[in-house]
Amino acid sequence: MYPNSIQKLIDLFSKFPTVGPRTASRFVFYLMYLPKEKIEELVQAISNFKNKIKLCQLCFNPLEGEGGLCKICSDPTRDKTLLCIVEKETDLQAIEKIKKYKGLYFILGGTVSNLKPEALKKLRLKELEERVKSPEIQEVILATNSTTEGQATALYLQRLLKPFNKKIVQLGRGLPMGGELEYADEETLSSALESRR
Amino acid sequence: MYPNSIQKLIDLFSKFPTVGPRTASRFVFYLMYLPKEKIEELVQAISNFKNKIKLCQLCFNPLEGEGGLCKICSDPTRDKTLLCIVEKETDLQAIEKIKKYKGLYFILGGTVSNLKPEALKKLRLKELEERVKSPEIQEVILATNSTTEGQATALYLQRLLKPFNKKIVQLGRGLPMGGELEYADEETLSSALESRR
Amino acid sequence: MYPNSIQKLIDLFSKFPTVGPRTASRFVFYLMYLPKEKIEELVQAISNFKNKIKLCQLCFNPLEGEGGLCKICSDPTRDKTLLCIVEKETDLQAIEKIKKYKGLYFILGGTVSNLKPEALKKLRLKELEERVKSPEIQEVILATNSTTEGQATALYLQRLLKPFNKKIVQLGRGLPMGGELEYADEETLSSALESRR
Amino acid sequence: MYPNSIQKLIDLFSKFPTVGPRTASRFVFYLMYLPKEKIEELVQAISNFKNKIKLCQLCFNPLEGEGGLCKICSDPTRDKTLLCIVEKETDLQAIEKIKKYKGLYFILGGTVSNLKPEALKKLRLKELEERVKSPEIQEVILATNSTTEGQATALYLQRLLKPFNKKIVQLGRGLPMGGELEYADEETLSSALESRR
Repeated sequence: MYPNSIQKLIDLFSKFPTVGPRTASRFVFYLMYLPKEKIEELVQAISNFKNKIKLCQLCFNPLEGEGGLCKICSDPTRDKTLLCIVEKETDLQAIEKIKKYKGLYFILGGTVSNLKPEALKKLRLKELEERVKSPEIQEVILATNSTTEGQATALYLQRLLKPFNKKIVQLGRGLPMGGELEYADEETLSSALESRR
Repeated sequence: MYPNSIQKLIDLFSKFPTVGPRTASRFVFYLMYLPKEKIEELVQAISNFKNKIKLCQLCFNPLEGEGGLCKICSDPTRDKTLLCIVEKETDLQAIEKIKKYKGLYFILGGTVSNLKPEALKKLRLKELEERVKSPEIQEVILATNSTTEGQATALYLQRLLKPFNKKIVQLGRGLPMGGELEYADEETLSSALESRR
Repeated sequence: MYPNSIQKLIDLFSKFPTVGPRTASRFVFYLMYLPKEKIEELVQAISNFKNKIKLCQLCFNPLEGEGGLCKICSDPTRDKTLLCIVEKETDLQAIEKIKKYKGLYFILGGTVSNLKPEALKKLRLKELEERVKSPEIQEVILATNSTTEGQATALYLQRLLKPFNKKIVQLGRGLPMGGELEYADEETLSSALESRR
Repeated sequence: MYPNSIQKLIDLFSKFPTVGPRTASRFVFYLMYLPKEKIEELVQAISNFKNKIKLCQLCFNPLEGEGGLCKICSDPTRDKTLLCIVEKETDLQAIEKIKKYKGLYFILGGTVSNLKPEALKKLRLKELEERVKSPEIQEVILATNSTTEGQATALYLQRLLKPFNKKIVQLGRGLPMGGELEYADEETLSSALESRR
């Protein structure tokens, strides 16, 4: 029903995470009323970022410019004995935001819901083994989400990393802030009870 | 905390309708893992659409190519005596989708919550007067939303268009499908009662 | 797991509309900490109301005391030519609350999702026919909910009451207050368009 | 607008936890259509339970019949060295349901949001001190909710019970099942990181 060049753009935006056709068309009409120079700015920013961004050689965090190491990995004050494995970039940011963690990270690039070889291929497993092998690392924190996929992936990593003889831990499970016993699921309550301290 | 070229793109996406910083960063990481040719395709589609799309001279619906009139306005089978005023493009699409309306449209370009001159300036009021003046038009349907802004705008249009001596109507107000009397607000219930038929 | 007399009460409260076992147990513990005289007051109020309440002979609205007619049916200022059929008591209250309707009511006692004889038996159909037959009544308003059941029931009533040759109308369908075209379902939008005025 | 005996009952039900006037009136109409013997059964169950239920002398769990001790406190297989302090009866039930805890309980009777003497008076603090004093008890688990009130109360109890020289612990805080790092609040994420294991 829309002209082709609008429909094409709606289709492309619909592939963005969390975006459906309705939101995608709102994006297009937002752009339609934007002045030309703002569009130019957006187009430039997309091309630019794609050209400039590289991934950190150690943790796969995105970085800009020369050097090969991101700000965290090249920061001499960080604790190099601690390695926190996260699913994705935004999880790393979430942990950085609380300003309590002083170690390094490794971005796994996703989680898997089953352990079929094709599923596992999309994770950076070889790179992870290489990283954990490093003698500096003493403790590995599996900071996957507490979802089914996150837990399956953590279980897999635990077995994968066992041969390296490092201390392997997981984030504590329990009642979140604001949580009430009466509404907690049984597994959360069990974890909270087990990890009482 | 992110590299500049990522932060810049997050900022630009955060201005998209319904998008906050968290969703914007998910967009950026989605693009980061997209192959270069897909990025190229997106960048092309944005530039392309901005160059190709013009607005219909009669109804301000977006159109592609030559001619000056959109598909609806140039369709000889549409009823040219009926003009439906909508706030925006997606409202026009919503009405087209039900396939019950055979008249023409006019896209107002927004609504106003107050009737201050600066607020009214962003609406296509001059163009609307010009359009309604046309002797073909016999009935004008004010199809603004049933929100406070939509109703204020409809009220304003009613007064603005009065001198043209056309039949001016509004969309029916009442219980929506699935609506229950017990949970309806008083105004909706009053409208439903008044417009019983 | 609870003592019998608590479990028994939880089971009885769980049958109340909208109440599940969790809410039911909150009710019981609320009562457990209530002083004896407050419990006595509640028990009295339940017994009392069950003994005192009768149904209006004309509209089946609950009433207290002598007379046989509720306040609305016995109010000489109400318009006796108008009869509004509602599903249940709370719908009547919802309409009374807007203070726009001056006619009389009839409480049907429910709705049906199918037109099987057993389903229809639970409605006051005989009583309704008797009531509509009255020569005073000129207009019948089918004020069932806009749900599937409500609409099926309205359709059935329309056929049932046809032989009485009264004007039969329904509440207006359309956009509710606050409703937006973009998010309206197709049926609501069609109704809004048809009933424009 | 309702007859007195209905309004009275609506008012009483409106004081039930989670119940507003609208739900209260649904309760009343539910009762109105219930046969007399069902009403009688409800009234009996309320009176009955109020007469029969006593509170356990040790943990204040409700119990029925003779003896003075509830099923849990009188169960010889439970671990009498562990005391779990909960806010209310339903929290005790929630923990029992997971079948992992084998110790005893103490129902505090609420939480406080401030530590003013009048607020603290509604809690069973004297009884708690008496109970914790018992030489059998070795570990006290403060199983209050993870809400602001629950945490303030836990803090208060920690200080109150310190003189008794028992091990005092709290339920583990952290990510609940299904929880995602990206959406966790900072305090939850900090707890999860600190309590990694």
